[in-house]
Amino acid sequence: MNRQIVVTHLPEGALGSEHFELQDVARPVPGPGEALLRVIVMSIDAANRSWLQGATYRDAVKAGDAMPTYAICEVVESQSPRLSAGDLVAAEAVWADHVVRPAHKLQKLPKVQPLTHLLSVYGIAGKTAFHGLMQIGQPLAGETIVVSAAAGSVGGYVGQIGKALGCRVVGIAGGPEKCAHVTGELGFDACVDYRAGGVFKALRAACPEGVDVYFDNVGGGILEATLNLMNERGRVVCCGAISQYDTTTPTGPRNLPGVVVVKRLRMEGFIVMDFARDDAKAQRALQTWVASGQIKVTEDVMDGLESAPAALIGLLAGDNTGKRMVRVGPDP
Amino acid sequence: MNRQIVVTHLPEGALGSEHFELQDVARPVPGPGEALLRVIVMSIDAANRSWLQGATYRDAVKAGDAMPTYAICEVVESQSPRLSAGDLVAAEAVWADHVVRPAHKLQKLPKVQPLTHLLSVYGIAGKTAFHGLMQIGQPLAGETIVVSAAAGSVGGYVGQIGKALGCRVVGIAGGPEKCAHVTGELGFDACVDYRAGGVFKALRAACPEGVDVYFDNVGGGILEATLNLMNERGRVVCCGAISQYDTTTPTGPRNLPGVVVVKRLRMEGFIVMDFARDDAKAQRALQTWVASGQIKVTEDVMDGLESAPAALIGLLAGDNTGKRMVRVGPDP
Repeated sequence: MNRQIVVTHLPEGALGSEHFELQDVARPVPGPGEALLRVIVMSIDAANRSWLQGATYRDAVKAGDAMPTYAICEVVESQSPRLSAGDLVAAEAVWADHVVRPAHKLQKLPKVQPLTHLLSVYGIAGKTAFHGLMQIGQPLAGETIVVSAAAGSVGGYVGQIGKALGCRVVGIAGGPEKCAHVTGELGFDACVDYRAGGVFKALRAACPEGVDVYFDNVGGGILEATLNLMNERGRVVCCGAISQYDTTTPTGPRNLPGVVVVKRLRMEGFIVMDFARDDAKAQRALQTWVASGQIKVTEDVMDGLESAPAALIGLLAGDNTGKRMVRVGPDP
Repeated sequence: MNRQIVVTHLPEGALGSEHFELQDVARPVPGPGEALLRVIVMSIDAANRSWLQGATYRDAVKAGDAMPTYAICEVVESQSPRLSAGDLVAAEAVWADHVVRPAHKLQKLPKVQPLTHLLSVYGIAGKTAFHGLMQIGQPLAGETIVVSAAAGSVGGYVGQIGKALGCRVVGIAGGPEKCAHVTGELGFDACVDYRAGGVFKALRAACPEGVDVYFDNVGGGILEATLNLMNERGRVVCCGAISQYDTTTPTGPRNLPGVVVVKRLRMEGFIVMDFARDDAKAQRALQTWVASGQIKVTEDVMDGLESAPAALIGLLAGDNTGKRMVRVGPDP
């Protein structure tokens, strides 16, 4: 048998555990060119929520579908010459113990230790931070970078890369514990607690020379406040809009597009695959900074397939510190 | 004596004639390094309204100030070796018959015929259209360009340049007369009348292959609708936000920044001076297209200094077709 979690119906407002159901189904059997995979660790990302809102850069999730996820898996059985049992692969999987996928869609992974780093600093989170900051933000030493969701998976790397490049780095995070983690463990110059209110004033005080690069993971009122502090020719890296995913009434920053015109800002969205041709550069730079201690890796691993709904719902409420993932089974 | 128009108090809501007053003052006298100028033609631009909302890319206008303007002037008297009486110059002037300016801030102009072309196709309007479209929009033959305020000074050139480059060009304008001008006289492929309602549906029908470049002069709901029709990796040229200038309650597109993330759009603001180093290229290209008949020049000239307030108020209400200006005095 095979356990899997399906989306029973699409959320209209906030996502809750009632939208998911754990089912026992038959273990899938690989056909020609396919492989049977055992899911080891699943990536839990804010973007998962947006997949439930309609077609994005991927097909929309429909009621009754098993919940899609990006995961590290072990090949159990292969019907393709490209893969052998025991291989470690990255896969577009679902929340399940086992999945079957076409072998040509699987990417072989090196057996780094710990394996979870393949989903955090060397995975989507680290590469998203690197590519978004370097290619769109284009920061220079001495500039000020602001990043929201700074205690989250991507935000922590953005700030640490910024520090490695010689920038002033200011985070925005929710609550005093996260802010202490961001300035203490991660070495940001300052961190604004948005839950304490007065984000604009606090951010202005933390950025005496204005903001040159804003790495936006949240959208909404925090984006609006930060835009008002941007310097001329500033760059806004549009990575996500977590404040807008789990709601039926999204709100746009009231100062758009006026502030973009007046300050001649550039706002640009991306997804990590857009820069895949530079993944090797990202990997080398990230490994260098991890080895030098300039990047610390923070992971937030929850145990057991059944914890996946709570892991995602909690992520949307901001209760994670570092890259959140769910461990479904043991390392090979 | 010298007539000038001052801003008596700053508008809180819509701009009206009560915010201006025509005054008779002493004719200014040039000091060393300065020149006395006779104003010939003044440029009337939507951006003038934004100067009354606070500091932008220039100092805010304060109550009691003469209203600033960009103008073509004749040098009457020069206290600088750089200029002689009779020279034609571009100046940051004010709404007045005469102004005094430092000679080093004046730009000598060629005596093209008609002189008004220096404020339309070869002036701010033409250069804004050219630089914004070429440097930020980066359209390629076969792509679809949408431009709002298509019957306005900048929008008409954007569309005609787009056609010259081999793009499909769709305008947005207010009322059937303007739309007829845009598709008839200016040769756009289609024009959507936003006053008729249903902008999103009409625009979707006019852009069967989606939108690759949106040249935005208006912001607000039209920006929101167009963003929803953009293709992946589309470019939004943020040139202005005329729908947001003349109000105390600006509204931001509700789909920002979500749609920028999902479609990986780039939105970028600019002002024409940012690309001054490429002005010669712009001039040559525009002259070439005017000579070939691919660009038609539409001008909307009102007569007399005293008509300036009505010219600006009317512009904000959208009652101009082509580049609006005010003639203060005769050609030299």
